[in-house]
Amino acid sequence: MQKIILDVDTGIDDALAILYAMGDEQAEVIGITTTYGNIDLNEATQNTLDILQLINTADIPVYKGSLHSLSDEKYIRREVTSRIHGKNGIGDIQIEISAYKPEKETAVDYLIEAALKYGKELKIVCVGPLTNLAHAYKKNPEAFLQIEEIVIMGGALTVPGNVTSFAEANIIEDAVAAKTIFESNLPLKIVGLDVTMRTILTQKETEEWWKYNTNHSQAIAEMTDYYFKSYKEQLGFDGCALHDPLAVGIALYPELAETLAIDLTVELKGPAKGRTIGNYEKLNQKNPSTEVCIQIDHTKFLSFFMEAIEKVLN
Amino acid sequence: MQKIILDVDTGIDDALAILYAMGDEQAEVIGITTTYGNIDLNEATQNTLDILQLINTADIPVYKGSLHSLSDEKYIRREVTSRIHGKNGIGDIQIEISAYKPEKETAVDYLIEAALKYGKELKIVCVGPLTNLAHAYKKNPEAFLQIEEIVIMGGALTVPGNVTSFAEANIIEDAVAAKTIFESNLPLKIVGLDVTMRTILTQKETEEWWKYNTNHSQAIAEMTDYYFKSYKEQLGFDGCALHDPLAVGIALYPELAETLAIDLTVELKGPAKGRTIGNYEKLNQKNPSTEVCIQIDHTKFLSFFMEAIEKVLN
Repeated sequence: MQKIILDVDTGIDDALAILYAMGDEQAEVIGITTTYGNIDLNEATQNTLDILQLINTADIPVYKGSLHSLSDEKYIRREVTSRIHGKNGIGDIQIEISAYKPEKETAVDYLIEAALKYGKELKIVCVGPLTNLAHAYKKNPEAFLQIEEIVIMGGALTVPGNVTSFAEANIIEDAVAAKTIFESNLPLKIVGLDVTMRTILTQKETEEWWKYNTNHSQAIAEMTDYYFKSYKEQLGFDGCALHDPLAVGIALYPELAETLAIDLTVELKGPAKGRTIGNYEKLNQKNPSTEVCIQIDHTKFLSFFMEAIEKVLN
Repeated sequence: MQKIILDVDTGIDDALAILYAMGDEQAEVIGITTTYGNIDLNEATQNTLDILQLINTADIPVYKGSLHSLSDEKYIRREVTSRIHGKNGIGDIQIEISAYKPEKETAVDYLIEAALKYGKELKIVCVGPLTNLAHAYKKNPEAFLQIEEIVIMGGALTVPGNVTSFAEANIIEDAVAAKTIFESNLPLKIVGLDVTMRTILTQKETEEWWKYNTNHSQAIAEMTDYYFKSYKEQLGFDGCALHDPLAVGIALYPELAETLAIDLTVELKGPAKGRTIGNYEKLNQKNPSTEVCIQIDHTKFLSFFMEAIEKVLN
């Protein structure tokens, strides 16, 4: 089993990533840290707690993280984000409000503590803006050099972005944090639109979920249908990309992805703000610290994903 | 041996590509087509003839191609191009003017004729703007579906461009032609800055060339020293990238490069004009027609290159 910490801004696909991680027997989720992004911090945290309670895994500790990016003074939700994830961030489904609360320790301190405690046994899977990790890294850089890997859902190297033609949402949301982490020499694996846009869930698959005779299954199927509707309206696309679940999948099964070893940088200004691109300063150095996923066995991942979700929902 | 046609805008690294192709025993150069780019068409053609005569290979037929891009009415040389390649395009070396002339047939007609005649035996290696090939493809698309491969030095997928942060020189010089070819479904192999900027020749290697006791060796060493000086001045870089020779090398030895199968598109407008990037419309289609070189065994290529150049110069 692989110890993982999930750093989420729950969001529909974050919720799916949590469900997937809870259902895959290779995953041992030791904690979840929250951040803003798909929705504000408080709602992302509440959504996280509510999803955990929905599937009876409310014993997983949740740590509250950053309110806003390193360069902004507050989080302002993009209008399009509201359309994609719904007003409440989870497709406007109504589920029970969790009785649980986040831990007292902050996400930043928890990340440092867990990195120091678990070292090589730990992978941190970040599927929101990289603000929590950047704060933690700045506070204690050495702590993170010892962990096995940081898997990041973010960026777009070989394909256009999704917020602009250059930038993917998690990166542009906090480009300064992303640049801090991307240039840090930490062991990174980037799961960007390069592979997530090749990993599509369709209604054909989720029809099953409606058939499971449980309340939480109906709720999750409804949430995912909202996501399908968003994709259709925003992108004219049948199906939805499994962005955040795929990052978990690659953390558990690295062999799913072909990777390119190349250190990246992040543009901070101009029309290409948030672009993730090869860093010429390091291009000819030996042993890059970053691996970018460029090709994916999406069929195999989809079968892992469906199996895990069935375990959780059925 | 591999039959190849070289499409060149001679240029220092085009000259090195010609020399390399003439020296590598795997290459059978059946013809050279010329275009504008590093310098205007007439000078590129003359440089090509002169380089061939310099090394006693003036029997290779040369076909004159396009004067300017598909979207411009004339070619205007960038000031920086003059600084990189020298006023005369080949590092301002003075070599004998060839007694030979280009063939009467145009580059465009020759490309079509050769494609039809040689089919699977032929690779076309384009190391300038794609104008000739785009004209030929538009005139007779079927002709090119049968050939083995089109190897293109151009573009930048995982690293920034060299003319702008987005665009590589050969592509931005005729973005419309590039888009025509990139979206054509022809069997393309892209040799972009992704791999050429990892394939660096330094003065350590070319010191040898000064020692060969031949006139043409001195001329080529002088030309290459000009290129080193340009790289140092323009990029603060020790050594020069073997852009065009590498495209020939990959045509001859495909195993030198790791590739990503992904169909690309080319941006035609805005700040990212000339950007080559994955085409979402085709991302999830089976069997992409394009392979992009993303990693290179530069040590092995450099040894092939040095061996071939020694054969030609010594």
